[in-house]
Amino acid sequence: MTHTESRQGAKLSMSMPQTIAIETYLADRRGDIEMALADACDHRLGTLLDAIRYSLLAGGKRLRPILVLAAAEAVGGERHQAMPTAVAFEMLHTQSLIYDDLPCMDDDDLRRGKPTSHKVFGEATALLAGDAMITLAVAKILDEAPTVPAEDRLRAASELVRANVTMCQGQFEDLRLQGGPATPDDLISLHRQKTGSLIAGALRAGAWIGGGTAGQVEQLGQYGLELGLAFQIVDDILDHSATAAELGKTPGKDLAADKATYPKFFGLAGARGLADEAGARALAALADWDERAEPLRALVAYVLQRRN
Amino acid sequence: MTHTESRQGAKLSMSMPQTIAIETYLADRRGDIEMALADACDHRLGTLLDAIRYSLLAGGKRLRPILVLAAAEAVGGERHQAMPTAVAFEMLHTQSLIYDDLPCMDDDDLRRGKPTSHKVFGEATALLAGDAMITLAVAKILDEAPTVPAEDRLRAASELVRANVTMCQGQFEDLRLQGGPATPDDLISLHRQKTGSLIAGALRAGAWIGGGTAGQVEQLGQYGLELGLAFQIVDDILDHSATAAELGKTPGKDLAADKATYPKFFGLAGARGLADEAGARALAALADWDERAEPLRALVAYVLQRRN
Repeated sequence: MTHTESRQGAKLSMSMPQTIAIETYLADRRGDIEMALADACDHRLGTLLDAIRYSLLAGGKRLRPILVLAAAEAVGGERHQAMPTAVAFEMLHTQSLIYDDLPCMDDDDLRRGKPTSHKVFGEATALLAGDAMITLAVAKILDEAPTVPAEDRLRAASELVRANVTMCQGQFEDLRLQGGPATPDDLISLHRQKTGSLIAGALRAGAWIGGGTAGQVEQLGQYGLELGLAFQIVDDILDHSATAAELGKTPGKDLAADKATYPKFFGLAGARGLADEAGARALAALADWDERAEPLRALVAYVLQRRN
Repeated sequence: MTHTESRQGAKLSMSMPQTIAIETYLADRRGDIEMALADACDHRLGTLLDAIRYSLLAGGKRLRPILVLAAAEAVGGERHQAMPTAVAFEMLHTQSLIYDDLPCMDDDDLRRGKPTSHKVFGEATALLAGDAMITLAVAKILDEAPTVPAEDRLRAASELVRANVTMCQGQFEDLRLQGGPATPDDLISLHRQKTGSLIAGALRAGAWIGGGTAGQVEQLGQYGLELGLAFQIVDDILDHSATAAELGKTPGKDLAADKATYPKFFGLAGARGLADEAGARALAALADWDERAEPLRALVAYVLQRRN
């Protein structure tokens, strides 16, 4: 940990409880999730599997599956029962990245430091891999937790598919808004669709699988929307800082050239303030929760402090 | 009806029971299904909806949703309860057509006599419309038949997503096999994945929604695989005949130029014989079923006799 990071961590821990070692917790969960992802699709797929595994096992923060597991445990459920749902959300997230990178969308060559799926396997295979992944994700939830009541698996799967419809709508709006969102409200609405919906969906689905009540599901969904907002603002701040550092431009020039971001609309300090406020609202949504929600609380600080 | 058609119809009705007026039955079902499709997605989607409705309401035989409804009724279920599942299968079928037509796949400009989705809306919108449709289809089954037990909705949705994974794998194999399948077995296997799986899935899902037993679901699935095979062979025969008539080439030249089809491997008479055999096996799968399976029996004759 650098000096700067440790100072910020100390500052945040004054206002936000962080009684668990979040890095250890995350590393532990990621290990379980990586194993589950590696096992996730070793049947029925033949050679299309290569393309699916290439993207699914390319690393990443694994934030969404970690949230599924944490939500299931926060409502008193068992973590291993929530693992297929955790895998499903990471699978859908990865699918959305494959499609976002396609030539007709953002046309990106690199993702997580590796060539994008269509660069390696061709557009047709990337398209079919993503198509199959959407339904493999649903199948994980429906088929692979037989001890979870059918009604709860059904609700969890419903969260996944609703989140995907919202994400598609958000991506469509984003493409339609040439030059990016014109107002802060548009920006917030867009990010809520593109990022917030899947993060909130992961928490809601995990809560259903864990046997949570409708009220608990709502609170975790609210927490998720705020966490997603904080995550996105910090993303924009990090992008901005990295760009400024790399390009050696003045921040002002950089902001003018950038597409719509939180720093552009609110300045860096303003954006940081908004992220902190979203974090505070995320914590407030968990105000009545017991110590089983501690990892979720610690994740707020983690998201606000992250450096990549 | 032409003279030829009516003779063939008479011939087939000797070996296959056809006690219901199948054309009237199909027209009636199609009317219901068109209405349900028009209502299917009027929320949450905003402007992406235009692209979805454009493809979904472009007409077509509506074979898959008709099979969902017929299967539900064959096991004693109520038709209206199966309508969301019927819509779901047509939605997934339409999505697969949108993707098959994309430039990176078959690159087609026309579908059902209209410009393809990406020609009208652009590739990015066609991609996102299809993406959303996959999950809208799942959501239809999960969310919109509250009187059907959760366990049965879950099984029906599971049939849909499994069928989609198999279709993706089939399409992938098809693209990989440059020049088409090399053997009749490869051709049959490919068609089973690309066409048979969704038709069988529609029947199985309808049976679950209708409250069918696992044994009934298996028999209807078997019927569906054979019906799908007959459908595909007749498709190839019709394609071949149309091409020969239009181009004015000799059948031999035509067969040599064509990609792998049933007429190419077996000749026209041989292919016709295979279609009839598949039809007979479809009927055999329903041997022990009562009069509620009559529409499914009549559909076999309909598929074998169709002229477009």
